[in-house]
Amino acid sequence: MSEAAPAEPSKSALKKAEKQAKYAADKAAKAAKAAKQSSLPVVGGKKTDDIIGITVSKAENFPQWYQEVVLKAEMVEYYQEISGFFILRPISMHIWNEIRKWFQASIEEMGVEETNFPMFLSAKSLEKEKDHVEGFAPELAWVTKAGDKDLEVPVAVRPTSEAVMYPYYSKWIRSHRDLPFRLNQWNSVVRWEAKQTTPFLRTREFLWQEGHTAHLTEELAGKEVLEILELYAGVYEQLLAVPVVRGRKTENEKFAGGYYTTTVEGYIPSNGRGIQGATSHALGQNFSKMFDITVEDPANKGSHIHVWQNSWGLSTRVIGVMVMIHGDDKGLVLPPRVAKIQSIIIPVGINKNTTPDDRKKHEDQVAEIRSTLKKAGVRAESDWREGYTPAWKFNDWELRGVPLRLEFGPKDAAKEVVSFARRDTGEKGFIALADIATKIPELLETIQKDMYTKAEIAFREHRIQITNWDEVLPALDNKNVVLIPFCGEPKCEERIKELTTRTDDQPDVPENQKAATMGMKSLCVPFEQPEGIVPGETKCLSPECERTADKWTMFGRSY
Amino acid sequence: MSEAAPAEPSKSALKKAEKQAKYAADKAAKAAKAAKQSSLPVVGGKKTDDIIGITVSKAENFPQWYQEVVLKAEMVEYYQEISGFFILRPISMHIWNEIRKWFQASIEEMGVEETNFPMFLSAKSLEKEKDHVEGFAPELAWVTKAGDKDLEVPVAVRPTSEAVMYPYYSKWIRSHRDLPFRLNQWNSVVRWEAKQTTPFLRTREFLWQEGHTAHLTEELAGKEVLEILELYAGVYEQLLAVPVVRGRKTENEKFAGGYYTTTVEGYIPSNGRGIQGATSHALGQNFSKMFDITVEDPANKGSHIHVWQNSWGLSTRVIGVMVMIHGDDKGLVLPPRVAKIQSIIIPVGINKNTTPDDRKKHEDQVAEIRSTLKKAGVRAESDWREGYTPAWKFNDWELRGVPLRLEFGPKDAAKEVVSFARRDTGEKGFIALADIATKIPELLETIQKDMYTKAEIAFREHRIQITNWDEVLPALDNKNVVLIPFCGEPKCEERIKELTTRTDDQPDVPENQKAATMGMKSLCVPFEQPEGIVPGETKCLSPECERTADKWTMFGRSY
Repeated sequence: MSEAAPAEPSKSALKKAEKQAKYAADKAAKAAKAAKQSSLPVVGGKKTDDIIGITVSKAENFPQWYQEVVLKAEMVEYYQEISGFFILRPISMHIWNEIRKWFQASIEEMGVEETNFPMFLSAKSLEKEKDHVEGFAPELAWVTKAGDKDLEVPVAVRPTSEAVMYPYYSKWIRSHRDLPFRLNQWNSVVRWEAKQTTPFLRTREFLWQEGHTAHLTEELAGKEVLEILELYAGVYEQLLAVPVVRGRKTENEKFAGGYYTTTVEGYIPSNGRGIQGATSHALGQNFSKMFDITVEDPANKGSHIHVWQNSWGLSTRVIGVMVMIHGDDKGLVLPPRVAKIQSIIIPVGINKNTTPDDRKKHEDQVAEIRSTLKKAGVRAESDWREGYTPAWKFNDWELRGVPLRLEFGPKDAAKEVVSFARRDTGEKGFIALADIATKIPELLETIQKDMYTKAEIAFREHRIQITNWDEVLPALDNKNVVLIPFCGEPKCEERIKELTTRTDDQPDVPENQKAATMGMKSLCVPFEQPEGIVPGETKCLSPECERTADKWTMFGRSY
Repeated sequence: MSEAAPAEPSKSALKKAEKQAKYAADKAAKAAKAAKQSSLPVVGGKKTDDIIGITVSKAENFPQWYQEVVLKAEMVEYYQEISGFFILRPISMHIWNEIRKWFQASIEEMGVEETNFPMFLSAKSLEKEKDHVEGFAPELAWVTKAGDKDLEVPVAVRPTSEAVMYPYYSKWIRSHRDLPFRLNQWNSVVRWEAKQTTPFLRTREFLWQEGHTAHLTEELAGKEVLEILELYAGVYEQLLAVPVVRGRKTENEKFAGGYYTTTVEGYIPSNGRGIQGATSHALGQNFSKMFDITVEDPANKGSHIHVWQNSWGLSTRVIGVMVMIHGDDKGLVLPPRVAKIQSIIIPVGINKNTTPDDRKKHEDQVAEIRSTLKKAGVRAESDWREGYTPAWKFNDWELRGVPLRLEFGPKDAAKEVVSFARRDTGEKGFIALADIATKIPELLETIQKDMYTKAEIAFREHRIQITNWDEVLPALDNKNVVLIPFCGEPKCEERIKELTTRTDDQPDVPENQKAATMGMKSLCVPFEQPEGIVPGETKCLSPECERTADKWTMFGRSY
C-alpha cells in the first residue's frame, strides 16, 4: 500500500499530524542543512534542536528544563535577530486565543468596549504622571528616525497605555452619564528589560489586554477592580488549572502612579518561588487630575469631580506559569480546556504484514472514532505518520503535552474498546467504543480538575504561616512562600529583602542555583486573612522593625 | 417620574444608549471644558466637535465629508500627539472584529495556523531581498535607543513581516511533508508615510492580518493565492456590501520583491477614483532563495528545491472604503452584517403628560420588542435618553449609520405594529409586532443586498472600455475608471501617468480638487476580460507606444 493513501476521512488528519510534528523525521537527510543553522539556541552546551525529548529533570535543573520544554514542545522560538524577543508558535497562540475568547466574552457582558490606540506615545504625555514615567522610563524603546530622517520629537513604543489613552478620556467623558466609561484593547507592549529574559515570563515584547475605565466614585471603581481580578483568577483556575491567591500589593510593589494594586499570585513548586499572575489597578484620581478628566458632580451642580480610574492587564505570562506548574520530565502537560489537541489517536498493531484490506478497515475505524469525538466537542486528531513506531509517537505527543492519548489496534477493535493514557498521571485504561462520546469529555474534565487539585495542594502546603523570624529562611529554603505579620512600610520591606538575601549571592552563581540565594519580597496581602493578628499589638516580623502589623502578608522568593 | 427609573428590563439599554451618544448632551454646562480642548481637529476652519451633523455634502466636498463622517460617527479620533496616527473607536473595532472572525474561520478551515512574531526586525534580515528593502526603507521607523542607552544595532518596526519570519521558515520547514506550511498573524504594522494621511486609507500604523505560506510547487502556491483573494473579495462583497474587481497587478504595481500580485480593486463613485482593496502575493522563489528555504525534491531524491511562497494581507483600510461608498449627507451608512447596532428602537409619543403607568407599560413593550429581536439574532438597542426629542435621536442614529430605525409609540402599540425607517433608502413602513422576529432579520438582509447592488451598479456603469486615447481624459473627468488595451511595460505605464496628469496640477491645489488633475495608474489586469483584444495585433492604447496588448487593463485615478 502506498504511503500517502490512508482512507479518505483520515487524510486531513494525516496532513495535520504530519504538520504538527516537525522533529526528527528526515533528520539524516537534512544533516547538511541543520549544520547551517549555526544560530540555534545552545542549552547546556548542546543544540536543543538536535535532541529529542527533554534532557534534564525538572527537579534537578528547572531553568534548563523550562527552556527545553517551551522550545521542544514548539511553544516558542527564540528570535535570534534581537535578544529578549520570542516567537509565539501555534500551540501557544491557541492557548492565548482560548483565554482571549473567555475573557472578552466576560468583559463584553460587563459593558466594556473594544478600542485600538497607536503604539507610540510622546514624552510629553508620559511625563504628566511623575511616578508613572519614573517607573517606565528605563525600559522605553525610542523611535528617533523615520526612513533616513531624524524625527523632530522622538516617540516611545508604549510600555502600557495610560499616557496614550487618558488625554482622550478627558475629551470623551463629558458627563457623569458617560460613566462608567470602559475600554479595553488587545495588543503588544514593549519593555526593554535589562534583566535576563525568559520565554513568556519576562520578554521585551509581550501580548496582553489592557483595560482602562473611569467611574464616578471610589466605591464603584473599587468594585470593578475586584470583578476584573476575579476574572483573572478564573483564567488561571478555570482555564489553566493553576491555583492563585487573591490579594493586594504592598505600597512597594504597587503600580507606578496608581492608588492601589490588586493581584493574583501563583506559586512554582519546583523552586518555591512566587509569581505575579495578573494585576488589576485602582488608579484613584492621580491620572484624572494630571489629564484633567472631570465630570459635573451629579449631587452638587456646578462643581466638578475628577473621575476614579482603573487599569487592568493580563499577559501571555500566564502561559509560562502554566508550563512551569504542570510540566514534567517528559515535557509539557496541557490542561484540556486550553489544549489545541485534546486527544491524539494513535493506531497500533498495524505493520507491514497487515493486508491492505485490514489496514483500510482500521483506518476507517480510527476516522470514525475521531469523528465521534469531534461531534462530542473534543479537539481530536489521529497520527498516521509513516516511519515512526507507536512508542516514538507516544513520546512525541507526551512532549507536546496532549492531555489524553488514545491507542487503537486490531485487538481493541475486537473488544470494541479504545485504550487510553492520561498525560497528567500516566493512568491507563479502556473505554468502550459505544461510550466515547460521553466518557472522553468526562475524562478530559476529570483531568482538568485533577491537575488543578494537585497544584492547589502543592500551593496550600507550601504557604506557611510564620511568627518567628528565625524560621523564615529555612522555610524559603524548603521551597515555601511565607505568611508573616508585616507593617507594610516600603523601607521595612526593602530591609526584609536584604535580611533574607544570602551573602553568598554572587553575580556568577549559575542561574539554576540563584533562587536559593535570592532575598524575599512581598507577593501580596491576601484578601483571605488567617486568624492570629491583633491589630495594634501584633508586631511586624522583621527583627529590626518596631511597628505593628495589621495583616498577614505573603512573602517569597519570586519571579 | 424620576429621570433614571425606566422599567427594569430597559435599564441596561438606557445605559448603553447613553454611553453610545456622547454628543451635545450637557454642552452648555461643559462649555468651559470644551474651550480647553484646543487640540481638536479643525475642519473647514471650525472645530468639528462643536457641530452636530455633517456640515458639507458628499458631492460638493468629498474629502471634508469623509473626515467629518469618520469623526462624528465616532469611528476614529485623530491622535494629536503624533501626526498620521488614529485611534480606532468601538464602532470601528466591531467591524474589524466581524471581519476577523469571518476570515479567521475561513483560513482555519484551510489549515492555516496562527503565530505571533516580534514587531522589530534587524536591518540585516531586511536587506536580504534587494527590491523588498528598497520598497520599504523610506518608511521604516527606527528604534535607536532603549531607556537612556543607544542600541548597538538599531531595529526597525515591521512594515510587513517577510524579513522577520522567513529566517525561521528556513529552520522549520525540514521536509516536503511539512508543506504546505501556512502561518497567519493579526497585528499592526508601521509605515511612516510622508504623504498626507487619511483615516483608515493611509495611516502610519494600521491593523491587518498577514499570511505567509510555503508550497512545493508554483501551481500549488498559485492556487492558494487565488483562494485567499476570493476570501478578500468575500470580505468586501459579503460583509461590507462593496463590489470589487479581481485581477492581477502590473509589474509596476506589484509587491516589492514578489513574483506577481493579485488584488481586489474597489471604486469610489463620489470622485471616480479606484482603490486597492487587498492583495494576495505570489512571492515565487525570490525569498526562499535569499533565506535558504529548501526541501528535498520528493520526485528526485538528493536534489533540493526552493519552496514557492505566498504572502497576503487585509487591513483596516477596508473600513474606509466601506464608509466612502455607502455614506451619505446624513453621515455613515453601515451594512447590517457589520453594524454594532443593527436596529435602534426609539420610543415616540411619550411626553410629560404621559402617566407613570402608561410610561411603564410603554417601556415594558419596548423592552419586549428588543428582547424578541435579540433572540432572533438582531443586535438591537433602545434609546431612552432623556432631554432629547425623537427627531434629534433620529438624526443622531442616522449620523452613526445604524441600518434600521424602529419607532414605537402608543399609536403603534394600539395597532400592534412598529414603524421602521431604512437608513440606506429612507424607506418607511410598518411591521406587525407578531412578525418582527422574522421580518426584521429579513429586512436587514434586504438592506445588505440592496446596498451591494447599488454600489455594484455604480461601479459597473463607471468601468468604461476605451479604444481611443482621446476619450481617456474625458472619461476620467466623468468619474470613470477605464479599461484599455495595455502592453504591460513599466515604462509605458509611467508615461501614461504623465500623459494623463493635468499641467495645472500644482502642489497648492486644495485636496478636494486634486482628483481632477491626478494622472491615472493601473489598478489591475482583471481576470474577467472583455472581448475585443487580438493578441499580437491590438495596439497598446498609449499614443507613444508601439507594442501590442494582450489584455485589457483597468486604469484610473486612485488612492
